[in-house]
Amino acid sequence: MKINSLQNPKIKYLIKLKENRQRKQTKQYTIEGYREILRANIGNIEMISLFICPSFFLGHNEKSLLKEIESKNIEIIYCSEQVFRKISYRDRPDGLIALAKQKMQSLADLEFFLQKKKNPFLLVVESVEKPGNLGTILRSCDGAGVDGIIICDEVTDVFNPNVVRASIGTLFTQNIFISSSEKIIEMLKKYNVTIISTSPQANKNYYLTNYKNSIAIAVGSEQYGLSKKWLELKSEQIKIPMQGVADSLNVATATTIVLYEANRQRFLK
Amino acid sequence: MKINSLQNPKIKYLIKLKENRQRKQTKQYTIEGYREILRANIGNIEMISLFICPSFFLGHNEKSLLKEIESKNIEIIYCSEQVFRKISYRDRPDGLIALAKQKMQSLADLEFFLQKKKNPFLLVVESVEKPGNLGTILRSCDGAGVDGIIICDEVTDVFNPNVVRASIGTLFTQNIFISSSEKIIEMLKKYNVTIISTSPQANKNYYLTNYKNSIAIAVGSEQYGLSKKWLELKSEQIKIPMQGVADSLNVATATTIVLYEANRQRFLK
Repeated sequence: MKINSLQNPKIKYLIKLKENRQRKQTKQYTIEGYREILRANIGNIEMISLFICPSFFLGHNEKSLLKEIESKNIEIIYCSEQVFRKISYRDRPDGLIALAKQKMQSLADLEFFLQKKKNPFLLVVESVEKPGNLGTILRSCDGAGVDGIIICDEVTDVFNPNVVRASIGTLFTQNIFISSSEKIIEMLKKYNVTIISTSPQANKNYYLTNYKNSIAIAVGSEQYGLSKKWLELKSEQIKIPMQGVADSLNVATATTIVLYEANRQRFLK
Repeated sequence: MKINSLQNPKIKYLIKLKENRQRKQTKQYTIEGYREILRANIGNIEMISLFICPSFFLGHNEKSLLKEIESKNIEIIYCSEQVFRKISYRDRPDGLIALAKQKMQSLADLEFFLQKKKNPFLLVVESVEKPGNLGTILRSCDGAGVDGIIICDEVTDVFNPNVVRASIGTLFTQNIFISSSEKIIEMLKKYNVTIISTSPQANKNYYLTNYKNSIAIAVGSEQYGLSKKWLELKSEQIKIPMQGVADSLNVATATTIVLYEANRQRFLK
């Protein structure tokens, strides 16, 4: 199939999915980019169709990806450059956009995971607002060897194209669970996971804590940090030392510092 | 003075400064936001005038900042909401934009700095492309207690409004030097600063290096990393371990990990 018209209903539909509301309603979303679609394929994300524009391809590996996609009976739709530019979120599109079904793990999946996983390394992200920050955090979790990411009291849509992009598709190969803070706290307690909450008001520097056992590091929103639900727990609280004029770091960089200290302690030989 | 018209030449000028070319030509730029202007004031940045729209003010501290600005004989210009929205870069402007003169330290300033500063903790940023990344790196430098930042082979304009914003004004209170990689390498060698280059191809994990002495950590661009000029040096090379499917982190988060490991080693008691 080849589409040359911006009026094509499939194209109109993809453009509509740029809106949060439409994604929520349809439970579908788009995945743009070679690396991202590659990882969605690795992560067994259910794709409905793949929109391509071969003249935008950057490398030589697209063919084998296309073959694999086709072998899964996913429809491949060719687009004109004009049409592709319209559905793309990028200044320099690389010619690949997949339409996919949303799927995320719930509280029950987390319980199943905690029953099986010994000594898990978890991250809790509460109410992070900016898609770019959430995506960058997911990318860092992949690098640091986090076993599972729990998104509490979701503010940003995980299926926002900027989350997909900033995560460079690591969103698709990791264990991500979504629920409310109350339920997650209860579950973590039930399975004896040590909660390590981050707060600028904490007394202890982050590198003075032990990350070697069963842990969940908790981080909060850009503007307000973690909510009381987390800070009022009798749990570990840590801060990142600030030597300069500012009183905080960007939430994605702050999270990454703590994740990699945990990585250092857990993997150091 | 009060401006109600979008046709006012001062307003037209500020809008033009959104373009890189105009900033380069005029050697002027804008600083938006309360925190940012506060820090520009602390850092003795030369401001020409301050555009305000009091109905957008978020707090109660603006008055004392305005008083201090006025005491420096900087002109304060009132704008209508419509006009202010037009000059603002933000979705939710906070009513304060300063027009300022560009000033950055050069190679000679760096030499003077190295003559005086014992055991410096430096960061070299080569050719980072995205303003948001450069600004976030500057914010992390402030937090980690970096003594000086050297921007080599500048690709992003340091005075881009998104650098100012992502740095939340820490740009103005730190020592920043701009020059070419060749000249900086020569200078660092002359003053016996150990260069620690970051590269995904390095063999050594970043936490196995000693950061306690006179050091310059070097990081490269988003797409290509450090250039050969840095990687061919007989210097320390470090990598960040990657446990997942992706082969790299976001450049600002990667830089921050190394900065805070240096911080940990230098400040740990």
